[in-house]
Amino acid sequence: MLRQSSAMLSIGATHPGLTEITEDVREFVARSGIQDGLLTLFCRHTSASLLIQENAAPAARRDLEAYFSRLAPENGPYEHNDEGLDDMPAHLRSALTATELSIPVAEGRLLLGTWQGIFLFEHRRSTPEREIALHLVGE
Amino acid sequence: MLRQSSAMLSIGATHPGLTEITEDVREFVARSGIQDGLLTLFCRHTSASLLIQENAAPAARRDLEAYFSRLAPENGPYEHNDEGLDDMPAHLRSALTATELSIPVAEGRLLLGTWQGIFLFEHRRSTPEREIALHLVGE
Amino acid sequence: MLRQSSAMLSIGATHPGLTEITEDVREFVARSGIQDGLLTLFCRHTSASLLIQENAAPAARRDLEAYFSRLAPENGPYEHNDEGLDDMPAHLRSALTATELSIPVAEGRLLLGTWQGIFLFEHRRSTPEREIALHLVGE
Repeated sequence: MLRQSSAMLSIGATHPGLTEITEDVREFVARSGIQDGLLTLFCRHTSASLLIQENAAPAARRDLEAYFSRLAPENGPYEHNDEGLDDMPAHLRSALTATELSIPVAEGRLLLGTWQGIFLFEHRRSTPEREIALHLVGE
Repeated sequence: MLRQSSAMLSIGATHPGLTEITEDVREFVARSGIQDGLLTLFCRHTSASLLIQENAAPAARRDLEAYFSRLAPENGPYEHNDEGLDDMPAHLRSALTATELSIPVAEGRLLLGTWQGIFLFEHRRSTPEREIALHLVGE
Repeated sequence: MLRQSSAMLSIGATHPGLTEITEDVREFVARSGIQDGLLTLFCRHTSASLLIQENAAPAARRDLEAYFSRLAPENGPYEHNDEGLDDMPAHLRSALTATELSIPVAEGRLLLGTWQGIFLFEHRRSTPEREIALHLVGE
């Protein structure tokens, strides 16, 4: 019989950019006891986001962070700047990436590919504590 | 015992850009009677999309709209232009943002963060009526 | 009573860019016997992604592929290039589009809009075989 499980994950990144959270998510799935189902992560912020990316090459992560810094730069022609120069680009980078991710679970494991990791993408320099809501439905 | 509820939301934006639909979604969740679960919104169009963004600062919304107008401009080197100059950029802006969003629900409430609102991102100037399919699974 | 169904779809694109997979997904939904629910597709790779787009105009698809080639070009200032010039742009194009998609199902049908198709967006020239995990919960 299907059931559900949920939790709130608090992540305080030590630096802007990508912080891997795959292990935290795996622990939640293991604790839930649900073997097969669908896991959803939801980032409760508009200046941080979620990303599934290569978990092997640090250079690829640095390139990805640098790319988004160029694509949505701090020195853009923004009207909204009363919360700091990094606030508006943070909203733009969030809009361009994911606020939520759903990942199937089978035999107690996230169906991530070999090279996939789950990352919090922190867009603010102040790296405030972030809440990621976790939801799992399955059996 | 888990059950599900669904509905079709019709939204006619009065202007291109962002239109907040959080209240419509909240009403659907309340009517469903489901207290804990997972809500999914699905935009049935390829020239409009969905976005979770800051619901407080109007300037941030204007900046976000202007940013996407620069990132996927009307005067790009597009081959497909027989449906209007705003058609191809509309597809591109849809591809860069979200066609669907899943949001956990707990104690009858969407687990949105304090500053998060759900928006329809209308990319066509003609602002046609849009259909957003809603699905909620939970108990 | 709610139940779930899952499968792994293997797709070998014959060319980089967009390959429609809507029919494969429809077959899975039909085989499952589930009439109403939520379907999720999850791409198990970091250099290919998923996209819902216009399924009618081939020119729109060509424009979309060309746009992402400009937005995340091969000749960018990337540090990570030991897996080929098309590897880093592949990660960036994946980050800008979707790794997963959830689509409501009603009366045995995906609630896609009239013009929407589901596409694998292959970002590598070598077009390796790709795995898309499918998950359906409903009744």
